[in-house]
Amino acid sequence: MSDMQLAAWTHNVVRSSIQDMLVMTARPDIISFALGLPSPALFPTSDIAEALSTTLATQANALQYGPPTSSLKRQIVDLMRHRGVRCREEQIFLTTGAQQGMNLLARLLVNPGDPVLVEHMTYSGFQQAVAPCAPRLVAVPTDLETGMDVDAVERMLQEGLCPACCYTVPAGHNPCGVSMGMAQRAKLVALARKYQFPIIEDDVYGFLAYENTDLPPLRSLEEDWVLYMGSFSKILAPGLRVGWMVVPESLIPYLAITKEASDIDTATLAQRSVETYLAQGKLLPHIARLCDAYRERRDAMLAVLHNHMPADARWSVPTNGMFIWVELPAGYDTELVLKRAIDQEGIFFLPGKAFAVVESADARRCMRLNFSNCSLEQITEGIVRLGRVVVDSKSEEICSTRRI
Amino acid sequence: MSDMQLAAWTHNVVRSSIQDMLVMTARPDIISFALGLPSPALFPTSDIAEALSTTLATQANALQYGPPTSSLKRQIVDLMRHRGVRCREEQIFLTTGAQQGMNLLARLLVNPGDPVLVEHMTYSGFQQAVAPCAPRLVAVPTDLETGMDVDAVERMLQEGLCPACCYTVPAGHNPCGVSMGMAQRAKLVALARKYQFPIIEDDVYGFLAYENTDLPPLRSLEEDWVLYMGSFSKILAPGLRVGWMVVPESLIPYLAITKEASDIDTATLAQRSVETYLAQGKLLPHIARLCDAYRERRDAMLAVLHNHMPADARWSVPTNGMFIWVELPAGYDTELVLKRAIDQEGIFFLPGKAFAVVESADARRCMRLNFSNCSLEQITEGIVRLGRVVVDSKSEEICSTRRI
Repeated sequence: MSDMQLAAWTHNVVRSSIQDMLVMTARPDIISFALGLPSPALFPTSDIAEALSTTLATQANALQYGPPTSSLKRQIVDLMRHRGVRCREEQIFLTTGAQQGMNLLARLLVNPGDPVLVEHMTYSGFQQAVAPCAPRLVAVPTDLETGMDVDAVERMLQEGLCPACCYTVPAGHNPCGVSMGMAQRAKLVALARKYQFPIIEDDVYGFLAYENTDLPPLRSLEEDWVLYMGSFSKILAPGLRVGWMVVPESLIPYLAITKEASDIDTATLAQRSVETYLAQGKLLPHIARLCDAYRERRDAMLAVLHNHMPADARWSVPTNGMFIWVELPAGYDTELVLKRAIDQEGIFFLPGKAFAVVESADARRCMRLNFSNCSLEQITEGIVRLGRVVVDSKSEEICSTRRI
Repeated sequence: MSDMQLAAWTHNVVRSSIQDMLVMTARPDIISFALGLPSPALFPTSDIAEALSTTLATQANALQYGPPTSSLKRQIVDLMRHRGVRCREEQIFLTTGAQQGMNLLARLLVNPGDPVLVEHMTYSGFQQAVAPCAPRLVAVPTDLETGMDVDAVERMLQEGLCPACCYTVPAGHNPCGVSMGMAQRAKLVALARKYQFPIIEDDVYGFLAYENTDLPPLRSLEEDWVLYMGSFSKILAPGLRVGWMVVPESLIPYLAITKEASDIDTATLAQRSVETYLAQGKLLPHIARLCDAYRERRDAMLAVLHNHMPADARWSVPTNGMFIWVELPAGYDTELVLKRAIDQEGIFFLPGKAFAVVESADARRCMRLNFSNCSLEQITEGIVRLGRVVVDSKSEEICSTRRI
């Protein structure tokens, strides 16, 4: 078996730690800030159970293969209006979630060797999705207050870069927890228009908005060059696997072929049941409840960070999403901090390195903290413990200034 | 938008007719033998509804992201024993269905330009799954009584062919409706061992067995070089999207990475609910009921074909699966027959061309008929009408002997 030849791209693959993390975080003694998990306590389980049983009782073909559910697409058109996006049913493409959206778009847009524009810190799932297409990742920095460095993008384009696509998370950036400023949004779509490259807008955290300062998605500013990805995973339940894209209609037939080759179709039962739930008008009130709960968790985490992290650490203050990005002072190595945090305090987080397109000292001193999955008590207790590890590490060998 | 550059492989893509067919076949006036759909009347809907509600009521994380469900893997190990396959939980990989299995394996095994061994008539979904990997398809004939021409495979290997993989459907071949003979099975796995290439065994029709002559899957003859794909789509319900693979344990980490990049995970709720259903011991009795019903439909279709097709037409007599493959006499063009069948008689089927790796006169005179989806009445009525179109076509311009 060791003689089975695998495709060339697999030789560069490093096993993602995320699946392992999922297993580890199931341990009851662990407080995990590692993954982008919604709070299971907030799942509208009985409403979903009702939607499933209603759907099965009333729709004869709910267990069959089937074409994408038109009535769900129409519900999504309505939902998008609440994000300030005007679109038509014909521009909606249903997926099993945003990860599949990325995967399909990568296949459609990227030839081997093509430059793909990302940020120094980029959602690892996007990096995985494009890897089999063998792209050349070209990265710009992310500012913790205004998001993607769009001026750096412009310089690269002026110097002749022709990206196959550009990926970003403008609302509640994963991993950096920042939302892109209005000027940056306007400039990025203007650049896409001028230099004719598609932007993959990952908006899975768009509806999780904690301030009244919510800025318009890129798709609301530009229809032809923005490929928008949404998901019910963060706002309803990931265990259903239903998401969507809003794309130019001309792309739909290509997406349909690529999707069919990937998994034939999205589970009919899940599509129809989400539609049943949406048609009952239950999603927007549910999102409002989620936002209240997650805002409270975010604020709790920010307060404990303030009291328990070193004075020269800094972090993002997210208006959207599930993550706070913490930059420890120069010299820290968060992989070593993580090891100690697990061993000594039973605390999990993801080190910056997990998202770094290129390894760097900047990435090495960062960590991503999820605030949606844990209870308020776990957040307080967990950040106090994590702060202890961080402060203790400063004067010891775990802080890599000593090691270099 | 028309300026958006798509990846090179898309330039060779021809839109599959399957999604269009799914839409068309929803018309109530159509009798469709086109798609590999199970019978919706036979779905165990209330048992599935019960499994879903039990799962939601008893498992707190059923709506969350999650690692593959171990208890489902163990159920599958038991199930595989009923196919004569001995395997371990660590060799089971859960998928959203066999189509995803093919997709993941294609990505892992195929480099651009690699030869991939298939049959002249090969399931179109496999052709779609490998297309983005830009393989060179190398095809051998399929005998309607013994399946894949394994002697032709041997000759190619002797001449130096080193396939990245070999794809076949040994039980209830799609589209040809034949099951591979025992001698062919033994020889194919011996060749895989000798020449060290993996066989992708698509066994989604393995449990749909209508005779006592059922032959062992390739995986039961060879553990290291056979990558087995199973699915609950044909034996339970496709609308759940749950399937599995049995592969050497060393391949699992690579599959996990590729799967995670594709869609993060298979719907937790669907996995857990299938597990709940299996744990209740309901699947095997359900499969027995399916086999009884489908055997009856197969026999009905064979009887009407016998009475209503031209005397010099021939067809496979399937021991497994969902399809009968009909070869019309030389000169027929089944694309033209299909057009007339739809227009004049409201009958759908898939023409041989839809499966042909290389276009040929042999492919052009064939058609695939599904017998699982229609009722006995529809089968009788539909084949009588189809026979009328075929016989009428013989003396007219639709029969391409006249046109050439």
